[in-house]
This record gives sequence, C-alpha cells and structure tokens, in this order.
Amino acid sequence: MTAVAFPPVHTAPIAVQWSPDGKGVRIIDQRLLPGEYLERDLKTVGDVCDAIATLAVRGAPAIGVAGAMGLAVAMGTLASLPRDRFSESLREHAHRIRETRPTAVNLAWAIDRMLAHAAAVAGDNRATIDALRTEAQAILDEDRAMCQRIGENGLALFPDGSRVLTHCNAGALATAGIGTALAPLYLAVQAGRRISVFVSETRPLLQGSRLTAWELARAGIPVTVLTDGMAAGLMREGRIDCCIVGADRIAANGDVANKIGTYSVAVAARHHELPMYVAAPTSTFDPRTATGAEIVIEQRSRDEVAKSALGATVPDGARVHNPAFDVTPANLITAIVSDRAVFRAPYDFGAGHRRPSR
Amino acid sequence: MTAVAFPPVHTAPIAVQWSPDGKGVRIIDQRLLPGEYLERDLKTVGDVCDAIATLAVRGAPAIGVAGAMGLAVAMGTLASLPRDRFSESLREHAHRIRETRPTAVNLAWAIDRMLAHAAAVAGDNRATIDALRTEAQAILDEDRAMCQRIGENGLALFPDGSRVLTHCNAGALATAGIGTALAPLYLAVQAGRRISVFVSETRPLLQGSRLTAWELARAGIPVTVLTDGMAAGLMREGRIDCCIVGADRIAANGDVANKIGTYSVAVAARHHELPMYVAAPTSTFDPRTATGAEIVIEQRSRDEVAKSALGATVPDGARVHNPAFDVTPANLITAIVSDRAVFRAPYDFGAGHRRPSR
Repeated sequence: MTAVAFPPVHTAPIAVQWSPDGKGVRIIDQRLLPGEYLERDLKTVGDVCDAIATLAVRGAPAIGVAGAMGLAVAMGTLASLPRDRFSESLREHAHRIRETRPTAVNLAWAIDRMLAHAAAVAGDNRATIDALRTEAQAILDEDRAMCQRIGENGLALFPDGSRVLTHCNAGALATAGIGTALAPLYLAVQAGRRISVFVSETRPLLQGSRLTAWELARAGIPVTVLTDGMAAGLMREGRIDCCIVGADRIAANGDVANKIGTYSVAVAARHHELPMYVAAPTSTFDPRTATGAEIVIEQRSRDEVAKSALGATVPDGARVHNPAFDVTPANLITAIVSDRAVFRAPYDFGAGHRRPSR
Repeated sequence: MTAVAFPPVHTAPIAVQWSPDGKGVRIIDQRLLPGEYLERDLKTVGDVCDAIATLAVRGAPAIGVAGAMGLAVAMGTLASLPRDRFSESLREHAHRIRETRPTAVNLAWAIDRMLAHAAAVAGDNRATIDALRTEAQAILDEDRAMCQRIGENGLALFPDGSRVLTHCNAGALATAGIGTALAPLYLAVQAGRRISVFVSETRPLLQGSRLTAWELARAGIPVTVLTDGMAAGLMREGRIDCCIVGADRIAANGDVANKIGTYSVAVAARHHELPMYVAAPTSTFDPRTATGAEIVIEQRSRDEVAKSALGATVPDGARVHNPAFDVTPANLITAIVSDRAVFRAPYDFGAGHRRPSR
C-alpha cells in the first residue's frame, strides 16, 4: 500500500463537508491515510456514529461538525413521519450520536445546540428539518471561520523561510476548515512565504506521520517526519525556528493539555530558546479549570503501545505507561493563538473566552 | 504471538556463551524477542555471519565476542586440513566475519586480536586452534568482567527505591555479561535494593520495549515501557529519580554519542534537575575525537520510520529524518561510569582510556 500521488494543491484538504447532492456528510476516511485516500458519504445515523467511533473522522472540532451535519442529514429523510414519531426519532438520533464519543466535548456541545435550535422553531417536520440544516450549516461555517481567524492571527509569527516543528495533528483533518496549529502555515504559504515543517510521528497512534505529513505533503508544503525522540536533536543542530501545536484544553492560567509528547517538545524548545506556540479556538479555553494540575489525563490501553501488526513489541511481564495527553505549564508557552487574539504571558484570556456549556 | 512466561530469575540473560558441547556459540535470537525466546547454536562461519548481519546478535560488545568465538569454533573443525589450507581458511573466515558489519569497531578489533594471537603461536593446526579458543575465551571473560566492574562502579548511584529511566538497550543483551547501563541495576537488585525501571521504547527499532523490557521483566525487575515522547512528562510528575544510558562513542571532552533520543532524555533531565548518567566500557572512549561535533552520525533508511507491517505510516510526499544516534554534550551529563572509574565533569579520562586500535 502506497500513498496516493497528488499534484500539490496548495490548499488544505476538506475533512468534513456536505455531499454534492446535499443528502450526506462527505468525509475523508482518516483510518486509511496515508496509504489510501477515500472520501465517504455518511447518509444515516449509523454511518455517522460508525465513522466517529472508529476514528474515520477525528479531531474535536471535526467531530462536532460531522455530528451536527449527520443529524440534519438523517432527519431530512424522515419528513413524512407523524410529528410525534419524528420528534422521538430526533431525540433518539441525537442521543445516539452524542454518546459515540462521550468525552468529546465539542460533539455534545454541537448536538445540544442542534436540539435547542430545533426546539425553538415552530411548525411542521419540514420546518424542523430546515432549522436543523440551518444550524448545522452555521456550526460548519463557524468552524471554518474560527480556523481562518486563527490562521490570520498567527500569520505574523511565521516569516518567510520559517522552519516549524509541530506534533500530532492539529491540522485541517482535525477541523472542518484549515486547522488550528497548521492554519497560520497554510496562510503563510498562500502568501508566498517559504515554510518547511518538521513533524514528530506522535507515538503511539502516529497522527503526526500519518495525518499531518499527509495533509502538508498533499498541499505541496515541504514536510519531514521524525520520531518523537529526534526533535531535541534537530533543535540543537539549529534546524528549527519555532514550534506550534494544538490544544485539547487550556486552563485559566495558560497551562495547556495536549497530545502526549507536547510537553517534551516544550521543554526542548525552552532549552534551545525557541518559541513554543499553541493554537486553539475559544472553545478550548476552560476558565473553570484554574491550572493544569486539575486536568485529569485519560490513560489509554496498553495495546496501543505494546502491539504491532506483527505481534508483541512489549513483553507480557512489562507494564506500559500510556497517557493520551500531557500538560505543558504556561511558563513554557511563548504565545497562545486563538481565533480572538494572540495571548502572551501572563495569560488573561478575558470574558470572551468561555468554554461551550456541556 | 505472546511473550514467553518466565519465573523471574533475578539475573541477567546470557546473550553469548559457548554451547554446552563447546562446539558452537550459543546466542539468544534477538530478532524474535519479546514474542519468542529461542537460543541458537552457531556452528559455522555462515551461521555466525548470518546471525550478526541479521541482528540475531547485536550490541557492539556482544558482536565482538560472538565473532571471536565463532572464528574459534569454525576453525576447530578444520584441524585435519593441510597447514597451508588451514591458514588460508583462517584468513578467509576472519575476513568474512569482520566484514559482516564493517562499522562495528568491536568486531574488527576482536577479529584482529584473534589473528594476532594465532600468528604468535608456533606449532601445528591443533596448537593454532587451541590459541584461538584461548583468545576467544579471554575476550569473553574480559567482556563479562568489564560489565561487572561497570556495575560495581555505578552501584552507589542507585540506592534502595530508585526509579530509573533508561533508553534503548545497553543491557545484558548487548554484551556477553550483565550489560553496561543496566549492570549497576542488576547488582543493586542482587544486593536487595528495590529498583524500578522506566524504559522509552526507542523508535524506530524499539530496542527499549523489545529488548530492555524483556531482559528486566525476565529478571523480575519491575519495568514500565513508555513512548519516547512520554519521558519528560514522567519527570515532571516526580516519578523518575535519575537516568542512565549507554554510549556508542565518548569524545575526549565527555560528549556522548548514543542511540537517537538520548539527547532528548538529557535535556529533559536537566530541566527537571535529575542526574543523567552514562555507562560505557573503556573501549568506548575515543581520545582522538576532541568533541561530539567531530562524530559523524549514521543516517539510516527511511523505511525504518515510514513503514509498518500494515503498510505506509508516512506518505510518499513527506521526507523522513532518521539519524541512528545523537550527541549529548558533556555539560548535560552528570557522570560517566566506566569499568575503570566514575568520571565527573570536567572530564579527564586519563591515559588508561584508549580506544582499541582498528
């Protein structure tokens, strides 16, 4: 299996969009990347739940958008149901989608927003379907606009010739737009700047090598994959100018929870006196979490680290440490780029940064 | 395939030894670990060369010992040859073994030492065979003694309760004895101290998870595997007391070339004010190399990073950065434990530390 050859398109891929006939949600099946490029049209609630559960679509923003659009698509086929059966189906479908990944805040937030909007609209099934469609479109549009604004806000951080290290995938594949951490890089390239990217593979699930490298290579942006242990050495050789990563949650003091390995990058960046940037939408800021110490880190399965397709890579007698995320303290972060502003320490995100209610 | 269950043996495995009948070199086939434990008896030059070339036996000290013993074993079957044919076979076999891994300094050093010893002995084929056997035994004994002395010299660094991070495999599997970096840990456990070890998996070839975790788990020493990006986070959580790694070459100023990812561990250890120890035999010190900047780093194949058994993990359009080693500057190294002494900065290894001639 080899990667599909593309002519460079100089733009980000589109991870979530309407199908051309409007009757489905078109996604890129991320399970198959980088070996195979396949777009799938999700037309039923079953399709949507399966795609989210199996990580065919992933990344908190992308999941929220796909869930909302999927709910609209599924309900669009049920206009002829009696009103009470229609309403019951709406509740059931919403519940089923929301439960697919219970820890993904964006998904619950998007589905709740869909239900609230539907409830606020008077009229028949057709009116409700129109309302769901309108709200899903709004969620999609807002996500794309959020990415674009992050890109614009961060653009000045990446002058011509920048050699940028990133980790995991906070790119277009994790959103419906041009990504978060990668958004300023796409815009810098569009502005004619020469940008080269180094991406750590991001063990255990390899989102860096499989996904970030794929979307950047597809866009014609030079990208080099390294193993997670190589980043510090590259910095020492003077081959990195700055780092930018995404975030899963940002505490009120600026501490950032993100994919495991981010903290290691931040420590190495500090040692080499390189800027360490974080990019994230407003919805990632959590003013109710005072510091990173309050963030509970998900511990994932042993097998992600210990098994490969050929068998055991860790002996039975050894334990495995496999946290999904780590916390990078605010004092190691040079700036946080959001859709609203670029924040620098001491962090004060202001009233505008509120996490969506759950 | 699952790892073989052992009762803990509280001792290191023996990577290289004579076969019980003395007519072969018994090795642990490291290609199969940790899924399968298989001892192989190498009886011909072809067996020995194949085992070294395919990494069934690996680690610079272990390869040198196995090559020397293999030469003795192979020549032992040729006593009835005419003297000139015997001498010609000795040269051919020695050349063939030495060329199996041309960059492994220890292998060439051991074979040259065997040839020099054979040339210095008068008499018939039987006398030469005895001389080869004696010299191979000396090389084996010296390697074991070297490991033991490193262990004894480093023992004081690991008090009861130590939680130790290591990287790659500088254990028994890389030597004929109890290893280099792991030697003090085996002796500490034998002395009744409670030692727990954390080992980074060491991408791309996973020597940490496949080999170090295997030999420690087999010995009943608690060992936890992590991905390379997790080490810094563990340090921040206060779960690591110190780090110890091996070395491939140590420059005159104390700069250490070792498996890629070592530098990242050293930077993280410094950030968290943890000791960073290096363990290596005298033969690893290279007074002809002034600093680490002079050490040429082997660049390895793209496929080690980019391919898994299931296919591509890096898209064709992305480059891969895959150095085998990195250089850790002396100022990040707390102490270097050799078979001769424990050295601390400023490093002055003295006249006793000379690299074996090539």
